[in-house]
Parts: sequence; structure tokens; C-alpha cells
Amino acid sequence: MEIQVFAVGGTIDKIYFDAKSDFEVGEPQIGDLLREANVTFDYRVTSLMRKDSIDMTDEDRQLIREAVEGCELDRILITHGTDTMADTARALKGVEGKTIVMTGAMQPARFRVSDAIFNIGYAIGSLQLLEPGIYVAINGQVFDPEHLIKNREAHRFEVESS
Amino acid sequence: MEIQVFAVGGTIDKIYFDAKSDFEVGEPQIGDLLREANVTFDYRVTSLMRKDSIDMTDEDRQLIREAVEGCELDRILITHGTDTMADTARALKGVEGKTIVMTGAMQPARFRVSDAIFNIGYAIGSLQLLEPGIYVAINGQVFDPEHLIKNREAHRFEVESS
Amino acid sequence: MEIQVFAVGGTIDKIYFDAKSDFEVGEPQIGDLLREANVTFDYRVTSLMRKDSIDMTDEDRQLIREAVEGCELDRILITHGTDTMADTARALKGVEGKTIVMTGAMQPARFRVSDAIFNIGYAIGSLQLLEPGIYVAINGQVFDPEHLIKNREAHRFEVESS
Amino acid sequence: MEIQVFAVGGTIDKIYFDAKSDFEVGEPQIGDLLREANVTFDYRVTSLMRKDSIDMTDEDRQLIREAVEGCELDRILITHGTDTMADTARALKGVEGKTIVMTGAMQPARFRVSDAIFNIGYAIGSLQLLEPGIYVAINGQVFDPEHLIKNREAHRFEVESS
Repeated sequence: MEIQVFAVGGTIDKIYFDAKSDFEVGEPQIGDLLREANVTFDYRVTSLMRKDSIDMTDEDRQLIREAVEGCELDRILITHGTDTMADTARALKGVEGKTIVMTGAMQPARFRVSDAIFNIGYAIGSLQLLEPGIYVAINGQVFDPEHLIKNREAHRFEVESS
Repeated sequence: MEIQVFAVGGTIDKIYFDAKSDFEVGEPQIGDLLREANVTFDYRVTSLMRKDSIDMTDEDRQLIREAVEGCELDRILITHGTDTMADTARALKGVEGKTIVMTGAMQPARFRVSDAIFNIGYAIGSLQLLEPGIYVAINGQVFDPEHLIKNREAHRFEVESS
Repeated sequence: MEIQVFAVGGTIDKIYFDAKSDFEVGEPQIGDLLREANVTFDYRVTSLMRKDSIDMTDEDRQLIREAVEGCELDRILITHGTDTMADTARALKGVEGKTIVMTGAMQPARFRVSDAIFNIGYAIGSLQLLEPGIYVAINGQVFDPEHLIKNREAHRFEVESS
Repeated sequence: MEIQVFAVGGTIDKIYFDAKSDFEVGEPQIGDLLREANVTFDYRVTSLMRKDSIDMTDEDRQLIREAVEGCELDRILITHGTDTMADTARALKGVEGKTIVMTGAMQPARFRVSDAIFNIGYAIGSLQLLEPGIYVAINGQVFDPEHLIKNREAHRFEVESS
């Protein structure tokens, strides 16, 4: 079962540019992480954009949707910033016949201590087993994005009570 | 969905004892790893033994089986050395009504670069979704232990061709 | 020989605040780094401010100078952002009878790969042996700050040719 | 000032061989560590042997002495296991006109938390400034090897009281 990874940016890919005294979204980290994990399944990584998710526009989400719809594989992992991950998941509503799992991290993958590697492993374990649909898989839970919000203070995702 | 973790040792838990100039199986690392991953599900960690899996005996496997059978939760993760992980999985054959996933690592979790954290994340993602049964989940693949062998040269698990 | 550490901020202490999607100067990392290095000399750590060095003002440098002058110990390490480290070193000119070494890092100490720990070790090795004076010790070289500049493109310090 | 590094093994270079379920002394780590630290001085690394220092023989020490004596550079760093580091330092007694600093680590350099990088930085800072002679520089202290012993229980070096 081959997996397509679309990397669009977010904290997980943040690196430090000393020349700017600032952190920016760098190249996708997931390729390195999967090599270090010595994984034995087939995968392709495509970098669609490198954005903090708070800066994502409707056009960005449309571009992601087109990439997903045009993908010949039916198991798709999207690494994405956490702030608007649920919005992008909802923007994929209606895509049929594919299992799409979104994940990210609250600390950059390059840190000595980070949730990034766990989240990637967890998301791939979920992706291989879930029925077609659109999911957010993070910090050990799989969510339906419909009423999902990020609780920034608690550093976790929650289902909004109606 | 609460998860029971049984830690029995293996490379994943190896630490270095300077006073002995040697590595030994230390305390289970999984508690630290789950805290660092900021997971939001409930879990319990029980250390059953601290053994290199090549040193495991039939009595050890009987003890693991009894712990699994006596566990009140029905989602169980076992962290185990990789060398005889498939043997222990086969020794659990016949346990009914529980989803049991075994995982481990080929490099200790305390290393800067290790497959441990990915494997833990992957195993938990699989554990939450798999039907009752006994599985080995490692390096991005879920295996039925029936004909599973570890290819030590290639650092990977493979299904023995009959 | 007891060492006084004054931490004033900079990249070395940068941590990631998910709630702000931004990196900021956090608590001094040097205490943790020295504990992890299992050092056997005595030291005190005082956090004077937490600033990116590009934001440092003349008042900040005056405050650092007063702390150095008022310090009862005569071996002082200052961890500082690299961008204006040489300026602060020059602002300490004329402090007598003390060995003052400044260091910092071009990648945060919390990264898996960083120059921070090496620089701390190197700076302390230098600090213990240098004659009284003001020095910048970084990336394996000890500099007189008089004509020192940071070459941002090359990620290194250089002595300006006159 | 160019530095010659002789790597002879020890905990600092230990890596894990999954195929043997055991840790062994691997390739010298110091080249990677110096690259990661972005150092700006010139250096050469020569691997003389890869041994746990408890296994070192008089012949090994003779070989190290010959390498040191034959070295055209006069600043020499030796990375060495800690258990018999002081013995090797004493075996170099009488080498004239060179500054020789020995260091090592109590935890492998490949661990997320290790004293290795600090010790390398500290040893190089000391090496560049010390008068000709033979020294052990570790955990933030420079020692004359004459009466030096390793206190294995306390994980530190101490000068034996006579």
C-alpha cells in the first residue's frame, strides 16, 4: 500500500535562519523522519507550499484540494500547521474514495523533544487502516474535522460542543 | 479508549551504564515518550520485566500471557525486544476478545536518531483501529505473527515464504 | 574556581511558543546544559534579560556592565545573541581584573543539532585559562572584540580588516 | 592553529549494532560533532583504534605514544574511553614540546542527552590555551594525570589523595 504525502508547511517543518534571527517553514522534514524510522512501506513526498497555517488562504486550500483529487493513490497524508488544520480538512469535504489523514506538530521536528515524530507514526498507522474519509490524527487521537477546534491554551484539539 | 502498555524490555529501553561500560535494559521509556508527544488518550504503563528478547524464556512468555489475559482493558500495547518478538506474539495465540499490538525498536529510544518514537506512534495508531487479534506493528507495517521472522541483516521483519 | 554566568538571551535560549506560532527567547538553557554535561566546577546562573541581541539598547548594555562590575567572582561567562555580541563586548571595555568570555549560538540549544553545547563547553574551557580581559569565544575560536564583526552570510565571526 | 585529533575509541564513540544486540565502539564521532558545531579552526582526525578503554593494552598505549611523537602538529586532542584515560595519559609522560589534551564521555555522543559535545568543546578550548604538557580535560575541569583516578560510582574524575 503506497502512501502519498503532501507537505504544506507548519510548525513541524520550522527551521531557524540565523541570518534573519527568525524561524521559518523550511523543507519538509517528513522524508528524513521516515528514513530515520527505517520504514518499509512505499511512499512519495510532494511539497505543495511552505506556509504557517495561519497564513493560508482559500486559494491555498483550493490548491491542496486539487492535488488530493488529482492524486492517483488513495491513501494520502497531509502534514500541515495546526492552527487551521481543521479548516483545511473541512475544505476537503466531498472528496470521495480516498483516505486522507492530516497531521502536524506543536513543536518543530528538529527539536530534541517534539511531538512531530510520534504524530507522523500515529497518522500513518491510522491512515493505513481507516475507511475512506477525511481525518485529523494528532497527539494520539483521530478526529472527524466537522466540529473540530484547536484549543491553543491547552495545546490540544477538541470537538466543539454544540 | 484507554490503553494498557506492558513493557518487557528490549533495545527500545536500553540505556548506558558507565560504571559497567555496558548497555542494559533500563526503565521503560514509553512513559517519557508519550508525555513528550503530549498524547490526549488515557493509558497505563506496567513494567513486567526488563529483558533483552534473546534472553526470554518460556516462563517469561507465560508471565506475559497471564498479564494479558488478566488485563481488564481490551487494547494492549507490548513493547518488546525485536529478536524474539514474533515468538512472543505466537505464544499469545488464542487470547480472545482483545486487540494486542507488539512493537519495539532497532535503536534505543534515548538516541538522537532512533526508530523508537515512530514505532510507538505507529503501533498506537494501529492498536486503536485493529480488530481483536495479535499483531506486530513496526517500521510502518502491521504483521500477522504466524510466519513472521526478523531479517537481522536487513534490519526488518518479513513474512517467511513457505 | 567558581564561574558566574550572566544569561541575556539570544538564539541559544530560543524556544517555540505554539500559542503564538513564534519563537521567543525563553529561560536560560545553560543550567540544563551544564547539568547534562555533569560538570564538576561551581557556577551560578543569573538571567539579566531575555532579548534577541538585535533588540538590545544602550541601557541594556549598561545594565550588563553594572552586573559584571558588581560581580564578586572574577570569571564571568555571558550567553548572548550573536548579532550584537561584539558590540556588547566592546561596551565592557575598561572593566578591570576580571576574565569575561561571551558566547552564544547560531542554532537554538533545544535543537537536535546545534552549536550551542559545543560553544558553552569551549567558552568555559577558555574562560578558565584566559588572562583578565574581554573575549568572544565561539565556534572554536577566541576573539578580541575590538574589530570583530559577525559575517551573517557565512555564519561566522571575523576580524574586520582595516 | 591546526589541531590533530587522535580517536582511539571509548564510550563517546559507542553505537548500537542491532544485528548483535550490542553496543560497540564505532567510527569516531568527533568529525560529525565538529561539523555540527560549525567550527572555524583547522583540524585533522585520525582513528588509531576503536577500543573500550578497559581493553587497552600496553601495546595500544605504545602505538598512541608513537602517533603523538610522530605528529607534526603540536596541539593534539585524544578522544579515549574514560576508564583508563588517566593510565594512557601517564603513559605519554615525557613527550616534549606538545600540548596534549585527552577527553571522552560517560554517555555516547549519539544519545539525545550526553556529556560528549560539552567535553569536546571544553577540551578544545583548553587545548588551544594550555602550555605544553599532558592533560585530561573533562566535565569542566583540567587535570594533571599524575594522581588522577576515575571514581566510577560518582561518574567523575578525582585527584587521589596521598
